[in-house]
Amino acid sequence: MSKFIPVKEDRFTFGLWTVGNPGRDPFGLPVRDGFSPVEAVHMLAELGAYGVNFHDNDLVPIDATPVEKQRIVSGFRCALEQTGLKVPMVTVSLFTDPIFKDGAFTSNDPRVRAYALQKTIESMDLGAELGAEVFVLWGGREGSEVDAGKNAVEAMKRYREALNYLCEYNLSQKYGYKFALEAKPNEPRADIYLPTTGAMLGMIATLDYPDMVGVNPEVAHERMAGLNFYHAVAQALEAGKLFHIDLNDQKMSRFDQDLRFGSDGIKEAFFLVKLLEDYQYTGMKHFDAHALRTEDRQGVIEFAKGCMRTYLILKEKVAQFNADQEIQALIAEMNGKKLELPDFDFKFSPESLKALQSYQVDRTAIGAEGIPYERLDQLTCEILFGVR
Amino acid sequence: MSKFIPVKEDRFTFGLWTVGNPGRDPFGLPVRDGFSPVEAVHMLAELGAYGVNFHDNDLVPIDATPVEKQRIVSGFRCALEQTGLKVPMVTVSLFTDPIFKDGAFTSNDPRVRAYALQKTIESMDLGAELGAEVFVLWGGREGSEVDAGKNAVEAMKRYREALNYLCEYNLSQKYGYKFALEAKPNEPRADIYLPTTGAMLGMIATLDYPDMVGVNPEVAHERMAGLNFYHAVAQALEAGKLFHIDLNDQKMSRFDQDLRFGSDGIKEAFFLVKLLEDYQYTGMKHFDAHALRTEDRQGVIEFAKGCMRTYLILKEKVAQFNADQEIQALIAEMNGKKLELPDFDFKFSPESLKALQSYQVDRTAIGAEGIPYERLDQLTCEILFGVR
Amino acid sequence: MSKFIPVKEDRFTFGLWTVGNPGRDPFGLPVRDGFSPVEAVHMLAELGAYGVNFHDNDLVPIDATPVEKQRIVSGFRCALEQTGLKVPMVTVSLFTDPIFKDGAFTSNDPRVRAYALQKTIESMDLGAELGAEVFVLWGGREGSEVDAGKNAVEAMKRYREALNYLCEYNLSQKYGYKFALEAKPNEPRADIYLPTTGAMLGMIATLDYPDMVGVNPEVAHERMAGLNFYHAVAQALEAGKLFHIDLNDQKMSRFDQDLRFGSDGIKEAFFLVKLLEDYQYTGMKHFDAHALRTEDRQGVIEFAKGCMRTYLILKEKVAQFNADQEIQALIAEMNGKKLELPDFDFKFSPESLKALQSYQVDRTAIGAEGIPYERLDQLTCEILFGVR
Amino acid sequence: MSKFIPVKEDRFTFGLWTVGNPGRDPFGLPVRDGFSPVEAVHMLAELGAYGVNFHDNDLVPIDATPVEKQRIVSGFRCALEQTGLKVPMVTVSLFTDPIFKDGAFTSNDPRVRAYALQKTIESMDLGAELGAEVFVLWGGREGSEVDAGKNAVEAMKRYREALNYLCEYNLSQKYGYKFALEAKPNEPRADIYLPTTGAMLGMIATLDYPDMVGVNPEVAHERMAGLNFYHAVAQALEAGKLFHIDLNDQKMSRFDQDLRFGSDGIKEAFFLVKLLEDYQYTGMKHFDAHALRTEDRQGVIEFAKGCMRTYLILKEKVAQFNADQEIQALIAEMNGKKLELPDFDFKFSPESLKALQSYQVDRTAIGAEGIPYERLDQLTCEILFGVR
Repeated sequence: MSKFIPVKEDRFTFGLWTVGNPGRDPFGLPVRDGFSPVEAVHMLAELGAYGVNFHDNDLVPIDATPVEKQRIVSGFRCALEQTGLKVPMVTVSLFTDPIFKDGAFTSNDPRVRAYALQKTIESMDLGAELGAEVFVLWGGREGSEVDAGKNAVEAMKRYREALNYLCEYNLSQKYGYKFALEAKPNEPRADIYLPTTGAMLGMIATLDYPDMVGVNPEVAHERMAGLNFYHAVAQALEAGKLFHIDLNDQKMSRFDQDLRFGSDGIKEAFFLVKLLEDYQYTGMKHFDAHALRTEDRQGVIEFAKGCMRTYLILKEKVAQFNADQEIQALIAEMNGKKLELPDFDFKFSPESLKALQSYQVDRTAIGAEGIPYERLDQLTCEILFGVR
Repeated sequence: MSKFIPVKEDRFTFGLWTVGNPGRDPFGLPVRDGFSPVEAVHMLAELGAYGVNFHDNDLVPIDATPVEKQRIVSGFRCALEQTGLKVPMVTVSLFTDPIFKDGAFTSNDPRVRAYALQKTIESMDLGAELGAEVFVLWGGREGSEVDAGKNAVEAMKRYREALNYLCEYNLSQKYGYKFALEAKPNEPRADIYLPTTGAMLGMIATLDYPDMVGVNPEVAHERMAGLNFYHAVAQALEAGKLFHIDLNDQKMSRFDQDLRFGSDGIKEAFFLVKLLEDYQYTGMKHFDAHALRTEDRQGVIEFAKGCMRTYLILKEKVAQFNADQEIQALIAEMNGKKLELPDFDFKFSPESLKALQSYQVDRTAIGAEGIPYERLDQLTCEILFGVR
Repeated sequence: MSKFIPVKEDRFTFGLWTVGNPGRDPFGLPVRDGFSPVEAVHMLAELGAYGVNFHDNDLVPIDATPVEKQRIVSGFRCALEQTGLKVPMVTVSLFTDPIFKDGAFTSNDPRVRAYALQKTIESMDLGAELGAEVFVLWGGREGSEVDAGKNAVEAMKRYREALNYLCEYNLSQKYGYKFALEAKPNEPRADIYLPTTGAMLGMIATLDYPDMVGVNPEVAHERMAGLNFYHAVAQALEAGKLFHIDLNDQKMSRFDQDLRFGSDGIKEAFFLVKLLEDYQYTGMKHFDAHALRTEDRQGVIEFAKGCMRTYLILKEKVAQFNADQEIQALIAEMNGKKLELPDFDFKFSPESLKALQSYQVDRTAIGAEGIPYERLDQLTCEILFGVR
Repeated sequence: MSKFIPVKEDRFTFGLWTVGNPGRDPFGLPVRDGFSPVEAVHMLAELGAYGVNFHDNDLVPIDATPVEKQRIVSGFRCALEQTGLKVPMVTVSLFTDPIFKDGAFTSNDPRVRAYALQKTIESMDLGAELGAEVFVLWGGREGSEVDAGKNAVEAMKRYREALNYLCEYNLSQKYGYKFALEAKPNEPRADIYLPTTGAMLGMIATLDYPDMVGVNPEVAHERMAGLNFYHAVAQALEAGKLFHIDLNDQKMSRFDQDLRFGSDGIKEAFFLVKLLEDYQYTGMKHFDAHALRTEDRQGVIEFAKGCMRTYLILKEKVAQFNADQEIQALIAEMNGKKLELPDFDFKFSPESLKALQSYQVDRTAIGAEGIPYERLDQLTCEILFGVR
């Protein structure tokens, strides 16, 4: 099946933390050596990926001295050069260290808020050095278990203050980053602020530089809230805010699973790929997932291959769907209804209003018209099943 | 307990559909005669409510002739005058009639979209006639089960087009309405577009008249997605977008229950009331719930009384919380940390940047400091339990 | 694709209420004429179904006189004879009428409990007359919103009492029914007693005639609780308790959707079909779903065809999976580990205990062995996608 | 509030892992030194707890030599003797070590299954030595992400085989343990077998020694599946199977939170306490929770105090509820309906059947009777709020 082999043009990327994941979970110890940054670069390049992304501390330990940092970055850069892999996106860990246990940008403690900004700025410097163009911010600790102690209105103000600061820094350094905000409803906090991609879009509208900031929707994070990921991404894309995307999978309404892309919500994954392909999304397709804890290092490779392969399989199915005459005829039928109201074009004007107010609808007749969604959905499933 | 008796100044309102609900559900027939509009006005006035709200067809049947409509409205107005009850909010049913079975503003069928606009405009006229100042839009059918047939990107464009039209109409008629958009994640559609209050805020930012449009968050709707309602309302309030609010209750992550306010998520209800009271929200406190199907008409009255009474109980607890010295000392302790960095004020400038970059944090020491949330939360619970 | 055309031997059945569903929902009016019982029989026979099932009042209105009942049953029997369709299962509505608003068998009101028994017994009579062999009991109202008023311990006793009575009646009439209990976690009640298939198995163990009673798991009902349906059915099947099954689909953790089989949880549906086929389940495959509200009567037919067709597609994929050498080799590898402990066979005896206690495990080595689930899952997905 | 101070007679216990929890989570490093076993014993004794429970490796590291083990156990026993604390329950970790990554009793690998049995037997020995009477089994890894590779029917057989073995061992050693099975729907596995308390009851019925085995329901675990915990415990209690209970809390339908008892589902906690008190449950009230990650060691103490204190507050409210005349009158009214059918007593006999079949119900009249649940629920809330 050579057609499902990824190439650089597919713009597939992985986080260092994904293939580096050693298989620890809240109830169990690590089970394997994850791939080190340099190992990851070589492995992913071999598989056909376009790039790697990282949190600052995926690459450089939080306690590294400047000399150690330089050595590490230099070795990493060397691997990038050897393989041609890019670093399209960088992010910052504002959640691992105990100092962030009650938040970073929204902490009640100004010492923590200042440190979070400092750490982010340093990560931006590091990313810029490696050519990153997108900077993702996931506020994993920006939330609460005890709302008595953290004022959510103040938290919004603090969040905005931090984002505004970072935009100014970006301008001041001429880094040209686009920021992509990643939402998650809960875990590790009982509740995380700005819990959905939609909430992030709402926040962005209130920033000083709204055009510099977009979103990084993640499949698993919307599904944790039982939401339709395709709808969330469509809203962001239509608003010109889809700056990055995190592909993985998840059973709905439960703990964060970070499963292999397309391994659970198969139909939703199809519509997502269709959206990205039909609208010619040119950003990175970033896999933010990790191999199951049952796997050894070979399993990590299978996992990474599977993510990309499933995307390509779904992409082929999108082409089949778009070329299927019966399917397209059904869609055309659904979209081919005519409104006989010459002066009305859904734009307000005195004329269009007059036309609208005079409109005589046959409510009962239209209400009784069937819309063949069952048929269309069955055909879609059969495209997915490969039996058409 | 005379202190928990509502008065007009509390600005409590109910929808006609709430006390009018006859107790039908997907698996059962109606069990009671709901209160008719005129009956509802009298009953609610007697209980101390401030106003009633309605969908067009709660008051005027969809098939009413102009003469019937006039007679109904006139009788309703008479009841309002007798009782002094207001109609602060009006909305429109774009979901009951079969014509809306695949959406109203986002339908693929332009005949349906035009009719939805026409029907909404007529509802705005009716509401204006009765003095309504807020117009709520809940797009209950704006969604899908079969994403193959409805393009979610186009749906966003159509939604916006309709909202822009309505804003223009509002201006043209000098109605002075504020629009309040109400989100819901699912039910009756498998997935509803713009499923959270946050997503609505994101959409509003893209409208032609963003200032005219805010949100109407509903407790149950955010809880259906497992989200923290207090956080959602805080985001809206902080953004100046809390134009209306729907109070009820709901077990998380299940079907729409519309339970009596404060009957399930007790702690979340407390923080919500605290938010509204602390920030002196002056809009309506609208109960969008209905009595259980086990109740007769007396039970409907108990339900309505209970909604208001619980709000007032929680309001008293907010005052206790705000006056509790031990609680306030804990909050002050949590918020009293100092950052010793003179030139840094979280606003970007070359000086603040320089200060920030020179900041020497003692990460380990701060990370080891306990934050007494367990104690604070226990005290909060004890306020709720009435044992302090 | 003639191979996906159902035949009687497939033992597919539908409820009269499924194809009879007129498309009403909590927020909308009916949109179509559902198929009447006689129409349903003819339509389903034409599509290749094996039988139809019903609640008493799907066929005979609750207010029918004896004469009307006889006429209806006679007309229905005639349609069965013309088409050869069977009635393998019958059930009783203990949820639609207002009398059941607080439960049937578990109502606090002995008048209601007695009537529920009487109504069930009459339904058993009717079913026996038409040849039904399985009697399903779904206690849609056996639950609560207000636990203060209904003692859940007493409810268990009452539930058992009713089931025991019905078993005795079954014996006394020599009907030979198997009872199949259907669990659901919530909706229409806030919480329903015995909410999962597992809970039903627990109850069955306490009955007077446990062998006469099994379960009727429904895809949507387990998924509403976020549970793995394949696991639930496996437990029932392994315990010899899978007397019937309700096939449909559902997004997890939300309102009851009754979607077309295989339209959402594609992978879970595959493992379910695999279980039923591999273990040669000989009971009915009953589709308890209904067409979307967007559909007219033709859409209902498409819906019914789709349910059966998807089952057959998945059945073919099961055969492919079972014949796939790479997949089977992986499974064999996973299952081929050897325990070198001659006297130990997992059955207790002094010898096996001694052997077990002497067992020297190399914990670290075994812990480090990878298990190739990622590879296996990817291959499974590719079977589902039809690209192998 | 001295009345909410726990004493030994309250039979409150904590797991060593609860107060020993260092605050690591999937996204963050440890934040504190948890209490060591000996420290925990002293701290808990001071707070008024009755006992401590543990997994084998909470006390004795998995790699300890026999000498080390003896030293540790001896030190621990000494602390118990000094404080009078008991060890009423012991359990075994079959989930932490990498060897269990794909299950213990249900692993496909017989080497793992044998080791799991061996490890459990050793834990039983250790527990017996310390006087434990209940042995809890939580099969945290008994589940799957990839159902293709693990046969769920075989898993049931393996689970039963292991449980039967352990029962035999218990008998052979005359330990007199009661086994208590603890269900959880997911996490760390995507899906865990026997995911609810109900499913465990179903399994128990199929064991060789069903009377020796009961359940250990945990608040958080049922709430993760969106289920009513009070109902689940009522089923177990009524079946004589409530051998142990794990008290904590959790927002519904999300990751495992192990919050302080009574901190989220306040009303559900009340009905749980009411059930345990009204039915004079004499087993241990075990808190299986941990302090938030924001806490230091003082916060852990506050957490532990809060768990017990909230139980006692709720216990007092149960007494108030039971003594409240208005509440009891409502309950009596709901339960006081009479069935005028002399020969019918809900037990099957020819006479009772004849009476039942002759019963003339006035369906409409009964259906129209209101049941005052709204009023009752409001009064219950007011008991909880402390305003009655």
